[in-house]
This record gives sequence, C-alpha cells and structure tokens, in this order.
Amino acid sequence: MQTLGERAVQAARLMGKAETHAKNRALLNIAEALEQNQSTLIDENRNDLEAGKRSGLDDVLLDRLDLKASRIQAIAAGLRAIAELADPVGEITGLAYRPSGIQVGRMRVPLGVIGMIYESRPNVTADAAALCLKSGNACILRGGSEAMHSNQAIAACIRDGLARAGLPPHAVQVVETTDRAAVGELLRMERYVDIIIPRGGKSLIQRIVEESRIPVIKHLDGVCHVYIDDRADIDKAIAIAFNAKTQRYGVCNAMETLLVATRIAPAVLPRLAEKYRAAGVELRGCEKTCELLSGCRPATDADWDTEYLAPVLSIRLVSGLEEALDHLHKHSSRHTDSIVTEDYTRARRFLREVDSSSVMVNASTRFADGYEYGLGAEIGISTNKLHARGPVGLEGLTTQKYIVLGDGHIRG
Amino acid sequence: MQTLGERAVQAARLMGKAETHAKNRALLNIAEALEQNQSTLIDENRNDLEAGKRSGLDDVLLDRLDLKASRIQAIAAGLRAIAELADPVGEITGLAYRPSGIQVGRMRVPLGVIGMIYESRPNVTADAAALCLKSGNACILRGGSEAMHSNQAIAACIRDGLARAGLPPHAVQVVETTDRAAVGELLRMERYVDIIIPRGGKSLIQRIVEESRIPVIKHLDGVCHVYIDDRADIDKAIAIAFNAKTQRYGVCNAMETLLVATRIAPAVLPRLAEKYRAAGVELRGCEKTCELLSGCRPATDADWDTEYLAPVLSIRLVSGLEEALDHLHKHSSRHTDSIVTEDYTRARRFLREVDSSSVMVNASTRFADGYEYGLGAEIGISTNKLHARGPVGLEGLTTQKYIVLGDGHIRG
Repeated sequence: MQTLGERAVQAARLMGKAETHAKNRALLNIAEALEQNQSTLIDENRNDLEAGKRSGLDDVLLDRLDLKASRIQAIAAGLRAIAELADPVGEITGLAYRPSGIQVGRMRVPLGVIGMIYESRPNVTADAAALCLKSGNACILRGGSEAMHSNQAIAACIRDGLARAGLPPHAVQVVETTDRAAVGELLRMERYVDIIIPRGGKSLIQRIVEESRIPVIKHLDGVCHVYIDDRADIDKAIAIAFNAKTQRYGVCNAMETLLVATRIAPAVLPRLAEKYRAAGVELRGCEKTCELLSGCRPATDADWDTEYLAPVLSIRLVSGLEEALDHLHKHSSRHTDSIVTEDYTRARRFLREVDSSSVMVNASTRFADGYEYGLGAEIGISTNKLHARGPVGLEGLTTQKYIVLGDGHIRG
Repeated sequence: MQTLGERAVQAARLMGKAETHAKNRALLNIAEALEQNQSTLIDENRNDLEAGKRSGLDDVLLDRLDLKASRIQAIAAGLRAIAELADPVGEITGLAYRPSGIQVGRMRVPLGVIGMIYESRPNVTADAAALCLKSGNACILRGGSEAMHSNQAIAACIRDGLARAGLPPHAVQVVETTDRAAVGELLRMERYVDIIIPRGGKSLIQRIVEESRIPVIKHLDGVCHVYIDDRADIDKAIAIAFNAKTQRYGVCNAMETLLVATRIAPAVLPRLAEKYRAAGVELRGCEKTCELLSGCRPATDADWDTEYLAPVLSIRLVSGLEEALDHLHKHSSRHTDSIVTEDYTRARRFLREVDSSSVMVNASTRFADGYEYGLGAEIGISTNKLHARGPVGLEGLTTQKYIVLGDGHIRG
C-alpha cells in the first residue's frame, strides 16, 4: 500500500499539469478499450458472479455486480460525457490589483490523491477514475472484494487508455488485494492521500469516518422533508409530496417525512393518502394525522429520525412555518428539505433558515442530484458542511490556491 | 462543556438568520464597551500579568499578554473595521435555470459553531469573536489560562454588546475553566461544533490535529521559498529575497530557503550576502553556495525542512526551474513560494505546478496575508487543502448550500 501511495503522489504531480486534451484523449481511449475488451470484461465478471453465487450473495447484490454488455456501453458513454465537460483545473478567478500594486487571485487546482472505497458495482471503478482523471487528480480505488476480477479488468483498460494518451498509468491504481486490512491502511496514509471518498451503505461510511486520519467526503443519512405550508397551492403540494416519496424509494433524496400545516391538512392529506395507498406506501402519522386518515399507523419517536429507503412515509401536522423549522432543526439529516408555499416571505425564510445541503421551494426533493444541478457528473452527495456540500462533481475534486503577480513588489 | 455546546447550537440558529445591521450594531457596541471599560480591562489584565510573572513567563510572552490602552484602542478599531466589511451570509451565486425548469444556485451560509483554541494574546478573544459574529456563526473560545482574567473581562464586554443589539449573548462563549481537559472535551464535541481553529505554536496545533474529531483549519509550518531564476531581473531578485527574509523574522510567510539558478548566482548572491550580513542574517548554504560565499556555513539535510522563524537563511543552487520545482515538491511546506523571473513561460509553469496555498511571481512571500489579499480581516492562514486554503477571512468561516426554486416541479 505504501508503494501505491508513493506512485500516486508522483502521478498526481504529472496529472496536475496535464493538458486538457491529453486528459480527454485518455477518457476516450478508456471508453474505446472497454468496448474492445467487452468479452474479456464479461468473462472476468462471470468469475465474480459465480463466486458471488457460491458465497450466497442475494439477488440485488448480484444484479449490481452484473456487468452486462448494455452496462459496459453505458460506462463508455459516461466516460465520453466526462470528456465533454469543461476542465476545471487552472481556472483563475478574482484576479485584481491591491493597493500595494500586487495582483491577487485564485487558481483552481486538483486536490492531489483521492482514495475511493466502494462496494459491489464495478461501474464505480470507471466512473470514479474518470472524474479523478478529468479533475487532474491521481486516485487509489478500493472496490468490493466481490467485484475483484471485474475491477481488475476495468483497471487494465484504464491503464492502457492513460498510457496511450501519454499520461502516467499510476494515475489510477486499483488495490489488488481483497485483504480488509488494506482499507485500514489506506485510511492512515495521510502522507500520500488528500481525501477519502467512500461510496456504499451507512455502516461502511460510518466505519470509514471513525477510522480515517484523512478528511472524508461523507454521505450519511438522507432524512429528507417536504413541508406543505398553509399557503401552498394544493395541486403543487400533492404533486411534489407524491413525487418526492414515490418516484424512487431506495435513494437518499427521497422524502421520508412529510410536514403539513394543520390548516391545510384536511384539504391535502386525504387526497394524498389515497394516492400513496394506491402506490403501496405505508403511512405512519402523528396523533392528529391519524385522526384525519383512517388506516394510518401511529408513528413512534424513532420514525422522525428514520431513513426508510422504502415505501414508508411518516407524516406530522405542524401549526405553521415556525414549528416546521423546529422539526427540521431537530430531525433533518441536513440533506435536502423542501417547502411548498405561495407565500413570498415564508419561502425566503425557509431558504435562509434551513441548514441543509439543498433547500428547495416548490420542487421535489428528488432533484437533489449532480446531473439535475448541471454538474455534468457526480461522485457522490456530501452531507459535510466543509469543502464540498451537496452533489459533488468535478469542482468538488479540486481546491483553490492564491496566486500573486508582482513586478518586484516588496512589503513595506 | 456540554451546556456550552447546546447553548452555542441554539445561538448559532439565531445568528444564522440575524440581519447585517444587527451584527454590525453588536460589533460597534462591543468596541464601545471595551473603550468604556478600559480601566477594568487593564485591572483584570494586571492580575494575569502578575500571575504570569510569578509563574515565570518570559518577557516575550508577558509582552503578548499585556493589554495596554493602545492595544485596547487597536482592538476597538479592528471591531469597527469588521463592521464595515460586506456581510458574506446569504449571498446567492450562479442561480440559473436547468433544462428541467428548476432554478439552481448556491447560497453562502455560516458554518454553525466554531471552536477557537489559542494561546496568550487576549486580543484574539475579541478578534475571533468579531469574525465569527460577522459571519453569522456562534463560537466557543478557549484562550490560554495565563490570560484568564483578561479574556473574561473582554467576554463580558462582548456579551453586553450582543445583548444590546438584540443578539443571543451565548453566540460568543469564553470557556471559564483553566482545566486542560476542557480542550480535549471541546475537540470531541462533534455533535455541537462544526470546526476547530487553533492559533498558537506548532506543538499546540499538532496536538489538536491529532486529538480532534472535528475538522480543523490548521496552520503548521511555513517553510517558504524564493526561487531566483536565471532570467530574473537582478535588482528585483535582490529586493524580493532581502524583503522576504528580513522584513520580519518570526512570521510564517518569511522566506526560509532561497533557491538560486546556478548561472545567475555569481551576479546575485555576493550582493545579497552583503545585505544579509549587514542585517545580521546567518547564511547556511549548499556546497556550491559556500564556494561562492565566504563565511557561509554548510547546510545540513535538516536545514531544507526547517522553519527558522529567525535571522537564519538556507541557500541552495539549482540548475534551473526543473530542479527548483523538484526541491519544492520535496521540501516546501506548501505555504507560500515565489519565483523571480522575467520569463513568461517559466512564470506560468511555476504558477501552475507549485502546489502551495500562495504561489507568487516577482513578489515577496511576505504578502501572503489576509489584509494584503483584501480579505479585510484574517482568522489565520490555512495550510489545509480542503475548504479554506491560505489566508482565511469571513468567507472561510462560511460554506455554501444549494438552493432550488421551482413552481411545482417534479422529477420525471
């Protein structure tokens, strides 16, 4: 692992000064290599799938692991899309003269070396490598042991693509051991690694946050809320609350708790409940909600802090904006929260006062996503407050340094 | 300490939505209170000074601790200057329509609760409080035990100023115990505290970085370099290299190592050495430097990694830009490095390839400073790569959240 670290630092130095066209060339080369080696990739993936079946992986995990031809096509298309994105590296902003005569501005630069730790999906290997490469970083990728053969086959295509573009093949290194101790070692390589990005379940991320000596871009819970204000447009409220819960269940930006102003609840909740029931969503409500909706199960205290990731919704009636803000202050996971209202002042207050990575007015929480926000690609959604907050794209994999231009200036 | 944390979180919620004029009013009130209570402050400070003398503090520390009338005036002036600065909170940038019809942008918001840990200077109590206040944060301040009485007297003025402006007095809390365990506890209060900012010597900062479970804006070594390229203007080179070393010695942005291209060394180094000697600067050189300069002591390997903070300079001859970049890659502490050259391409390469928080062309490293950069005020200089890098002002005490404006938009 130390050798990987040293090589990554060397590669990072070259990647930081690589020209945009070389990085784009590498991305296109990798896409091509993946397509040309499709049958090898599928063969290697079959080894993983068979081992997975033998070790008793469930169907969901096996499906995630499966590298079908259509998925290889999608990965290649993703690489080509990243090649099309603007290069963030080297952008200079705010360059201005100071009273002393020096010019001061900021230049966007790569972070250096990125450590990615993730679970079964082999496509993450290519996606993460592509984002790190385009943003001028080197990376060390540690995928799940169940995807070992697939990841190594993808890594070979990446090395080939880098080398043919004149870039250092060690810019992307895939850890070859399935030894779990390698993860612990990576998390202590603060001499070489600038940031750790985990992707996977909550327990993986929690373990990494606790163990890491390197800053982590983490994504823990998405307990997202929609608050339907009493000045909401009822049709918009129903459309948004239904979409935020049901458009997809297992995603971090799905709504888990619905807050409804008491005065508008009779006009909104029965109609919404009917739609939820038709979609098979289980409702758990506060006392007042259960009075309004027959068949609603009473919510327990734990419900207000639970990310169901399932067709379950908790509903609470609140007297108005103040009580909604109090609920969010206590229970929001600070991922994404939305207000539905036609009231100008309340919308402004909600935007300012809700302390979440995405705060919305009259829009479904499901929009909290790098592609929807126009980042072009996404390496994850950060629930950190520092550095990168919310969907993280190329910019989140860079930092800024100050640059100073003078003409022999000295300080008096 | 837990009570302090809870109160800080409550206060942070109010500070985050406080209007600019209320925050400015509080700053002006505090300035006024400090002036009106000048004699009390000086009395309390006398207690600290006497205790310091009894416990054997050296003269430098006693001078730092001394709260003279002129220093109280300077603190009050600093508070009024911060009131004049633009409020960073609430600024919305990049708000643009996406193909889906939603508008997406970013709003600048406070970090929340800031923990400051610092040593003897009591002015830090007022300066740090003012920056946290203006940026809409709450803070918990833990000053040195040797400044206990002075800090509590300043804290009373701050509380008074906040209360008279209608802001929560707990927005600024000064830890009252001198128990060292309180620092350890603060560093584990990740439930309440969003960021830790230490100010003090290297050993204090290193201990905090190791112990903290909360992200730290840290400032470790400033091993800064000037590289005199063989295409440098000789007069500029001499002026910059002399200023960078001698304008002040005990500061992090002073040059510690001078790199000189071999071809220009005979024209530059003897003239520079004469000036350094006249200023009492001890020179330690590589072999070739010692051949050029009589009386130059040979540098050891350790010299290239040493922050002298004193009238000592190490000098190394390099064949050109490539070797200078290699030296920086190995030995720069990534604080501030400067090239002196008239060569356009080398200047551009240096700016792009040197991975330091400030990279300069033809300017003294001494300019690396929040005031010189136009930040208006500075809470420290960060050698982190993430979040805030280089001089940290009000913006570094804030973060950005995404805001989304819709009109009933749902995801398809």
